[in-house]
Formats: sequence, C-alpha cells, structure tokens
Amino acid sequence: MNIPQSKNPRIVIIGGGFAGIALAKQLKNKGVQVVLLDQHNYHNFQPLLYQVATGGLEAGSIAYPIRKVIQEYDDFYFRLTSVQEIDTTNKKIIAEIGELTYDYLVIATGSKTNFFGNKEIKRHSMSMKTIPQALNIRSFILENFEQAVLTTDVVEQNSLINFVLVGGGPTGVELAGALAEMKKAILQKDYPDLDISRMQINLIQSGDRILNTMSEKSSAAAEQFLVDLGVKIWKNVRVTNYDGRTVTTNSDLVFDTATVIWTAGVQGAVVAGLNADALVERVERIRVNAYNQVKGYEDIFAIGDIASMDSLDFPDGHPMMAQPAMQQGTLLGKNIIRLIANKQMEPFSYNDKGSMATIGRNKAVVDLPNYHFSGVFAWFVWMFVHLFSLIGFKNKAVVFLNWVYNYIRFDREGRLIIRPFKKRSFTTFTTDEI
Amino acid sequence: MNIPQSKNPRIVIIGGGFAGIALAKQLKNKGVQVVLLDQHNYHNFQPLLYQVATGGLEAGSIAYPIRKVIQEYDDFYFRLTSVQEIDTTNKKIIAEIGELTYDYLVIATGSKTNFFGNKEIKRHSMSMKTIPQALNIRSFILENFEQAVLTTDVVEQNSLINFVLVGGGPTGVELAGALAEMKKAILQKDYPDLDISRMQINLIQSGDRILNTMSEKSSAAAEQFLVDLGVKIWKNVRVTNYDGRTVTTNSDLVFDTATVIWTAGVQGAVVAGLNADALVERVERIRVNAYNQVKGYEDIFAIGDIASMDSLDFPDGHPMMAQPAMQQGTLLGKNIIRLIANKQMEPFSYNDKGSMATIGRNKAVVDLPNYHFSGVFAWFVWMFVHLFSLIGFKNKAVVFLNWVYNYIRFDREGRLIIRPFKKRSFTTFTTDEI
Repeated sequence: MNIPQSKNPRIVIIGGGFAGIALAKQLKNKGVQVVLLDQHNYHNFQPLLYQVATGGLEAGSIAYPIRKVIQEYDDFYFRLTSVQEIDTTNKKIIAEIGELTYDYLVIATGSKTNFFGNKEIKRHSMSMKTIPQALNIRSFILENFEQAVLTTDVVEQNSLINFVLVGGGPTGVELAGALAEMKKAILQKDYPDLDISRMQINLIQSGDRILNTMSEKSSAAAEQFLVDLGVKIWKNVRVTNYDGRTVTTNSDLVFDTATVIWTAGVQGAVVAGLNADALVERVERIRVNAYNQVKGYEDIFAIGDIASMDSLDFPDGHPMMAQPAMQQGTLLGKNIIRLIANKQMEPFSYNDKGSMATIGRNKAVVDLPNYHFSGVFAWFVWMFVHLFSLIGFKNKAVVFLNWVYNYIRFDREGRLIIRPFKKRSFTTFTTDEI
Repeated sequence: MNIPQSKNPRIVIIGGGFAGIALAKQLKNKGVQVVLLDQHNYHNFQPLLYQVATGGLEAGSIAYPIRKVIQEYDDFYFRLTSVQEIDTTNKKIIAEIGELTYDYLVIATGSKTNFFGNKEIKRHSMSMKTIPQALNIRSFILENFEQAVLTTDVVEQNSLINFVLVGGGPTGVELAGALAEMKKAILQKDYPDLDISRMQINLIQSGDRILNTMSEKSSAAAEQFLVDLGVKIWKNVRVTNYDGRTVTTNSDLVFDTATVIWTAGVQGAVVAGLNADALVERVERIRVNAYNQVKGYEDIFAIGDIASMDSLDFPDGHPMMAQPAMQQGTLLGKNIIRLIANKQMEPFSYNDKGSMATIGRNKAVVDLPNYHFSGVFAWFVWMFVHLFSLIGFKNKAVVFLNWVYNYIRFDREGRLIIRPFKKRSFTTFTTDEI
C-alpha cells in the first residue's frame, strides 16, 4: 500500500463518514501516523442525499473531497480502497490495493441497506445510502416519466408513475415529501402530455406510526403534512415481496409499480475477520464497550453506525445517525492519544441534541430533548442546522443559493439523466441493469 | 412515439444543442407542432465542459433541462431518444423509441470526436464532447493519482501522471491550462506523498501553431501563457498511434502515458438515410444551401456543426462553434415559418462576433473582428461572455459563485470520483472499461 514506516504508532481508520472524519480531525498532528481508507474519495453528507435524488441539489454540493480535509495534516495518508478482511492475529488489514499493518484499528464503515434476507426485493428495488445510489434514483424517476409519455397503455403508465417507498423513517418521509413537491411544482409542467394527477406516492410503514424514533407529536404532524401533500401512508403493513412489477404485502394490499425505494432497514457494513461474539446478529453491528473498544480486542475500535454500544439509555446501541457518530469519533481521537500515553480513557456519553425531519416546502418537525415543534419555524431550524453542518464554505453557499432559488421559483433544476437512457421493455427490471 | 396529430404542420428537430434550442425558441407558439428529440434530457453548454473535467464546476451547473426550456410552449413535444435513420421517401424518422412522420425535418445532431479511422487510438484515448465524457475524464485523472500513490515503481508513476492532450484547438488549450492550474494549486497539496513536479502536461499540435483558427497574435500569447504554466507544447507533430501505454508520433517523439485526451478532430454526427451527395466525406457534414436546406431535399434542413454551408468566406463551411449554430437555428425558425406561409426565405449570413480562449488563472486571448487582446482584461471578458451565455439564472449564479470561490481560494472542489474505483493492473486499458 506504499505507506512509509514512521516513528509514530500507526492508526488505521476504515471509513470517511461522519465518525471517521471526526476522528481524523481529532488526530491531526498528535504524534501519530494515520491512514484513512475509504471506497470513495469524498465525504458524503448523507442527511441531504434525498435532495440529490429528487433534483434539489447537485451531488457535488453535499460531498467534500477527503484529501482536502486532511491536506495540512502531518504523517497522514488517504487511500482509496475497500477493505476485505482484518487479520487480527498479525495486526493487519487486507484491502483491494494490498495489505497494511496497524497499531490501532478503527472500524468506521457505517451502515448499508438491510433487505432482511429477501433477495428478490434486493434485486428489484433501489436504496439510497450513497451518492451513486441517489443519482441512480434521480435518473430512474425521470426515466420513468420519459418512458410513460411513450405509451398509451394506462396500466403501464400508472405503474411507471407509481412510487412505492418502503420504510417510514426520516429517509422515507423526507423522500416522500420531496417527491410530492416535485409532482406539484415540476412534473406537472415538464410533462404536459401526461396526466400527472395519476402519479402516486405510497409510503409503507410496518409500525403504527411514521418517524417512530421521534415524539408522537412529531409523528402526527409529519403524517398530516404528508397527507396534505397527497402522499398515501400505509401503516401496520409489511412488504413481503417485490418481483419488479408488483409489491405484495402481509395484507390484501398490492401495488403495481416500476419503482420501489427501500429505506426500511439498515445494518452495519461489517468487515470480515472479527470474532463471532463481537458481532450483533441480525443488525450486523459490532459490540463495543464504553470506550468504543471492540469486544475481545484491545487495539480495535468501532465508531458510528457500525458500533453497538450497550448502555442504559440505549440497550440496542445508539441511533444510527450523524450525531452519535461524530461524538464517538471525536472522543475516540482523545482516547487513543490517552491510551498511547498510558492514561485513563474517558467513557462515551451521548449528548442527544434532538432530531428533526423535513416534509416539503415550509414544513418540518423538530424534537428537542424537552420541546417538540413543527411547521414553518421548524423548517427554518432544519435548514440552518443542515446548512451549517455541511463541510466547507463553498458547499454551504451553493446549497443556500440553490435552496433560495428552489424556494422562490418552486423549482429543482437538477433534472439531468446522466446515464444513457434505454427504453425498457415493460417487463421486470433489476437494479443490476442500472 | 405517442405524439398526437395536430392541425399544425409537424417540425421534427433532432438534437437539443445550441442550434436545436435556438430553433426551438424561435418556433414557440408559431402555429406549428414541434417535436424535439435528443439523446440527453438536458442542453449542455459545451464551452465549459473542460471545467467539469478538471473539477472547477459541477455538471449540473453547465447543463439545463430541455423540458424546462419548452415548458410553456404549445403543441411542443420532447422525446428522449437517439435517431437511427431517416426515411426520406415516407417522410419519417426511425428512432430507438419508434417511428415518427414529419412535414419538415431539421438535423441538428452536432459533431463528435474524429479519430480519423484509427481504431486503436479511439479505443484507448478519451474524448470530451459530452457531460458523461467530461465526468469520466475527471474521475480518470483523479484515479491516476490515487493509483500513483500505491506504487514505488517510478516508470509506472511517471506514466500515470503524464497527460498527453492531442489537438491544439480551444478545447486542448483550455484543458491544458486547467490541468496546469490543478497541478499547481491542488494536486501538490492533495498528494503530499507524491512528487507532483514530475507531473507532465504535453500538448501535441499537428500544425505550426496552437489555436490556428484565431489570430497569430492570440496563438503566440496563448502559447506563452501555457509555457509559463509548465505545459510542454509539441508543434508540427502528428500522433500515429496509442496502444494504451505509449503514444507514437510521426517523429522520434514517444510518450509513455496512461492518459491520452483526444481533441484533435471533430466530425459531423450524421444520421443514416440521406443521399450520398448530401454528405461531405471525411468530415461527415451535411451539405446545405444558404437557407440550411439539405442538398437534394426541400423539407429537410441541417443546422449547426453538422451543416456545411458553402459560402464565399467559408468554403469549407462555418466553424463548428456555438455562434454559427445559434444564428442558423434562429434564422431557420423564421425561414420555416416563411416557407409554410409561401414567403421568400432569407439567406444565412454569419455575423462573426469573434472568438476567445482562456488559459488558466487571469489569462485569456480574445479575437474581435478588428482587435486582438490578451491577459487579465481578456480573461474578464471571457468570464462574463461565458457567464451570460449560460441558460438560466441559477446556473449563472452558481457558476459565478464557484469561479469567485475557486479564484480566491486557488481551489477546485469538484474532485469526486463518482464511479467505483478499481486498481488497474498496469498494462493497457481501454475506455470501454470506464
């Protein structure tokens, strides 16, 4: 991997998400060698992915080059690669681009979509965890409309402009709201030869309320906002299969649709090589102690979505969100330096700053620890929190400018189908083709 | 293709480039039915493609949704498709998505890269005529550097960071300047573990000066700007082959390189089905009269790069640039309406507003009909002309903001490798893999 041996202990970080970047920043010029590995050469601001998918923002506005983050850091290396395996005995990782030994290893690989073992759903539906996936969803939505204008077959048309979102968490809810805004403000004008009122947005939630990690008040407000926007919400419904044409559920409900976006579950993106009892089955997260140390190892840590820290408040681990990830990354940076200096590490304690979700124009719900509110003010809060959380002045400015423009003009100009358009035969399709 | 029959005569336009869009705007609500076909659902501002390729701008900033252009136009249809053939006998076109009859047909398909029949060069080198191609170049340049840090083999490293640009026209010159700026301002900082001073930018020109469609004064100034930036210019050299590793030329000169960007020639992107004597061999353009009527046809027109109009000032047709394309599109719009009304059409006369090229920070050359100048003022002129030529307020604002930011910060943040990175075996590669 061509990393020079230095006098400093080597810390290898796998993953440049919220957790990995927070850790990297903390380790800047602290007398350690750091090697940061990621499959992408950019950090991606996941909370705004749904806006890339719906044409509100360009991908470049919510991504930031990792090499730029670490430009001024001494003894700091970035390598673009995926990691196949950890060899804990020889203290090395095995990556696509070669092997590398570590003194300390930090797993910050985040999470990926969980299809709960259903291969057919995985094959036919789309997920939205990465920028390429968000761009694919964007192209795919627009392709559906380009395809729909070509036919007079009403059944085919309905299927092409029927969108089924599975999962009523923040991603599903924000995507549903954005799609509803697209329907109202853009698609109507862009496709005058299509009856856009027939476009359906169906949001399917297995539980009895959407946004079930938020307060009941916020759930109810979000639900009302979505209903007002014309989104159909199906609660207490579980999707059992999707064959590329029809979604079946545990009830009589079926949906004929060309598009299923699956946000119904996440699981840790584990790397092979750890002891079995370090892993939490089903959700594939890695068990860590209060110092983010992986169960059974002194020199391996896990932070962010991948880490499942058993605590009194969070018996199943912290929520898989940016806040715990960043806080764990920052603390671990300090703790590793303490560990090297033979000092006592500090246990993690999550500072819950609240959570929020936006549901289209002028509408959002915000849960602060002791206060819940929704509506226009919540929407402003949502915007400013997200704006200031973006890395880099230029991204902030460009996103701000886009939002102001989109707001004033009722528009979203990111409607480019970048990949080659092929007319599909109206049978089933797989996401492999995309 | 599901286009309703209307009482109006149907004009089919193939291509939504500068010519096609100018024509479409002219035909707005003029009592004709218009069907605009393009392989992409966006209009692409080609003069700034090199900035997308070098990370200065995002693709979305220089593209504009075609459906948005025509949103308010009556009896106006857009279809996303490529056209395979014209059946002039039955007055119809045959496209991937079906067939369509026309009353008047306008071919505005533009141009594509001309490899002069050399299949090996075509297979191994990159071209930059479309947004996907520009994004590919961007990813490929960055991948070369990610690949170069993985090895200690100096020969391999040199090859990976040696860039050969073939063709000294505006595209090659502007790309060379932008690469040189990237080298100075970004790559040096992004890759501290690589000796960036070894990065080479070679610009190969078959003639005895670069920018040979501009004034000699501008050629000389541009050449000096490039030399000052460290670009090596090779004049009177013809590339004979590139096998994916080594560029050979008609002299002793050879270049070991992983990257050849070919801007040495363009040819018309012709559609099959026209009579042979309507085509200009070698450059594949379509012969038109002063009304842009295709030779041998009353009801078929060609405009823009694809059209070769024999005129006193331009015996080989007008330059393949935005200006003649837009002027021909606008005039043809008026002429078709005249033709339908049985009025006399007006012959085309090219109003040459001048030409310009930029060569990195603070440097440009401008040729006005009677005045040539270069330097900082030329660079300002270049910027404002390009800024105001972009379609849409938001694109103008975002591009402006990016340029100000890039200028002040000596930066280009568009450094995202969107496609999956694979370590290449250092043998040959083909652009098919990309």
